[in-house]
Amino acid sequence: MAALESYITDNESRFLEELKELIRIPSIGALPEHREDMVRCAEHLAAHMRAMGLPRADVMPTGGHPVVYGEWMGAPGKPTVLVYGHYDVQPVDPVELWSSPPFDPQVRGNELYARGAADDKGQLFLHLKAVEAHLRANGQLPLNMKFLFEGEEETGSAHLDGFLEAHRDLLKSDLVVVSDTAWFDRGVPSICYGLRGLTYLQVNLRVADTDLHSGSFGGSVANPIQVLSGIIAGLKDDRGRITVPGFYDRVRPISDEERRQFAALPFDEEKFRREIGAVALWGEEGYTTLERIWARPTLDINGIWGGFTGEGSKTVLPARASAKLSCRLVPEQDPQEIFDLVSARIRQLCPPTVELEIVPMHHGMWALTPLDHPAVQAAARAMERAFQKRPAFIRSGGSIPVVASFATILGAPTVLMGFALPDDHAHAPDERLDLGNFFGGIRAAAFLWEELGS
Amino acid sequence: MAALESYITDNESRFLEELKELIRIPSIGALPEHREDMVRCAEHLAAHMRAMGLPRADVMPTGGHPVVYGEWMGAPGKPTVLVYGHYDVQPVDPVELWSSPPFDPQVRGNELYARGAADDKGQLFLHLKAVEAHLRANGQLPLNMKFLFEGEEETGSAHLDGFLEAHRDLLKSDLVVVSDTAWFDRGVPSICYGLRGLTYLQVNLRVADTDLHSGSFGGSVANPIQVLSGIIAGLKDDRGRITVPGFYDRVRPISDEERRQFAALPFDEEKFRREIGAVALWGEEGYTTLERIWARPTLDINGIWGGFTGEGSKTVLPARASAKLSCRLVPEQDPQEIFDLVSARIRQLCPPTVELEIVPMHHGMWALTPLDHPAVQAAARAMERAFQKRPAFIRSGGSIPVVASFATILGAPTVLMGFALPDDHAHAPDERLDLGNFFGGIRAAAFLWEELGS
Repeated sequence: MAALESYITDNESRFLEELKELIRIPSIGALPEHREDMVRCAEHLAAHMRAMGLPRADVMPTGGHPVVYGEWMGAPGKPTVLVYGHYDVQPVDPVELWSSPPFDPQVRGNELYARGAADDKGQLFLHLKAVEAHLRANGQLPLNMKFLFEGEEETGSAHLDGFLEAHRDLLKSDLVVVSDTAWFDRGVPSICYGLRGLTYLQVNLRVADTDLHSGSFGGSVANPIQVLSGIIAGLKDDRGRITVPGFYDRVRPISDEERRQFAALPFDEEKFRREIGAVALWGEEGYTTLERIWARPTLDINGIWGGFTGEGSKTVLPARASAKLSCRLVPEQDPQEIFDLVSARIRQLCPPTVELEIVPMHHGMWALTPLDHPAVQAAARAMERAFQKRPAFIRSGGSIPVVASFATILGAPTVLMGFALPDDHAHAPDERLDLGNFFGGIRAAAFLWEELGS
Repeated sequence: MAALESYITDNESRFLEELKELIRIPSIGALPEHREDMVRCAEHLAAHMRAMGLPRADVMPTGGHPVVYGEWMGAPGKPTVLVYGHYDVQPVDPVELWSSPPFDPQVRGNELYARGAADDKGQLFLHLKAVEAHLRANGQLPLNMKFLFEGEEETGSAHLDGFLEAHRDLLKSDLVVVSDTAWFDRGVPSICYGLRGLTYLQVNLRVADTDLHSGSFGGSVANPIQVLSGIIAGLKDDRGRITVPGFYDRVRPISDEERRQFAALPFDEEKFRREIGAVALWGEEGYTTLERIWARPTLDINGIWGGFTGEGSKTVLPARASAKLSCRLVPEQDPQEIFDLVSARIRQLCPPTVELEIVPMHHGMWALTPLDHPAVQAAARAMERAFQKRPAFIRSGGSIPVVASFATILGAPTVLMGFALPDDHAHAPDERLDLGNFFGGIRAAAFLWEELGS
């Protein structure tokens, strides 16, 4: 144990230099001109993993950017953990807003500034360094480990499900660990145990073949925007409650324990409001902001369009109007069932004066790892040992589609043990990684393998 | 009288050739490359009017395309009529859909096919030929006449109000006659005695500084599209009635006499529905389609936009949403008052969770010439003499802004005595003019000067 920690402490500056090397490869997955950089980055990672002592580390093709797969399976009878991360990074534009070149990593204060520092190269790399520490200090790992690093996370993971399905046996694991989330706040180590699901649809209305003159025809046919507005208005009441019959039927109530945990977090509503420039915070009556975001379902209109939307005052009576609508879902809501319920309500609200089309767009499953799951408890102990602070258990209002894929395709639960911070500027100029979180993250990962393997 | 009619009959074929000459000048006001053609067309008209025997016919400059002004003031003590028309025409695209070149006028059947044949060169020109018939057959006109032909009607008459104001004395008249409207149907001579007014505004809502991620923030702030939909839905009830307090207070009820007149018109609701490709006809309960379009006010959403409107399913919680809204107004509604009432209702419906901005865009006054006005009655007699059929008295749901300008700037009422047909394809390929309506229109105009001057 002492050897493990000493090894990490003694090698911190080398770890940082190695991370910089990885970051210098501009692996922007979205841009075709970086295709070669993507391959170079995958090969760099695989070579590094082999050099570190992993018996297997391969670059494996997909229909898009390659996957890096590695493993250490020398602990028969012990559990197998799959570590997931991604080596692709976001584009860097507007590049003129960066204080230093995005692929020239620089330490300022206690932070490393570069594209990919936090999202996700730094978080992916800390797992490799934790493994290296075990192998060098102890000659072995306390459990079996697999690594899956993809190159398409920032562009929608188009080929990941196919890869999981094609390599189900190779990837078989008892647990998936993902480090691609942020702490609740600086100085608040966090474990995310819940994600919301999603159902997304589009509504198209038509009243006539072409736009009509609002003078010559106004008053004689329904206005599709008026009808669409009536439908949308009919989906929620004034108190923020969704009025789709059956919508809340399967919603698991927030437990008193969870409410207490959320309320105990250092959350400043006014600071939150100011940061997003909101006129006001508002949501479903009877719930706090964190409860609304993390543990309550939503129905939001993501976009709407119809008629004349340019400058000036064209007197058109539109022929068509459309809206995009999505619901964030919580346990135990079923995305398909919610799609059906919302669709039925829309049909019920739609008068016969318009032609209605409802287009399903996308489903995503929520995820919730029970707080008393041994892996969550092990992660909590590992975080506490690394940061000398009991971690906060948090949920996220977003969805991480791969988590659902791990559950459905590999049958494995996921622990989200991230080390980024909310102000790390992921996806923005001056992305950065707190070095305390990076070095602490190496320890937390190393301790997690101990906790899970003991 | 006989001399007048004989002169017209004897000269029909020359009149047609002269109209073709006028049409051959491609006076597309909207296109800069036709700037010279606009000047050429104005000069052609003025020269023609002088050659016809008008003592004054000038091309007068404006900030845009010139105005052609002419007059015959040889009947002291008699009323003065101002004839308004426009010599600019619509663009011709898609030109490949024309059966013959748009500026090469051709007679097929009993119709003249060309851009501007109906809108408005043919209708403008028939007035000149009626004047010529009087001057040649009788040596004089039965009343004083002024002519105002503008070149910017199809592009919004940007400089007309300024011209009217600058030349108030020159243009002073007892009555304005406009021939730029269509009959109710083929074979149904019509006089339009009413137009609707307009108030147009834009509503802008903001909930946050920038679009937010619908996962990370969904549920914690109001959705501006949801709020906007609620506002729009709150402006009308299920029976098509506008729920803005005070909106109907000044609306003059449709008289039983007018209802009978509307009902007596040969109007086929199913044919009307099919022609516009409408799913259904629908409007304010208790009124027929013609009543709804001609004599009842409307509130229509002309456009709406907010959030993500592209392909696919971006999970955005929009920061902003906007809509364009307009009301068609009827006597005695006041556009400014209706703007104020609608704005007040919108403010009342808007919750404090969003920032609201209401932008006034445009006002337009309704017009209604009393059916028993001597000029309307004179026009009816002239139409009946020319077409051997009592004309229908119709209204229009649209607005003709110059009519309000004539009322407010010149203080003169307007009679709308048009000769186009609903299927003349104005603004579309294969625009055409029924030659029976053209030659009959010359007679109707000639008779109208007699009726008004007697």
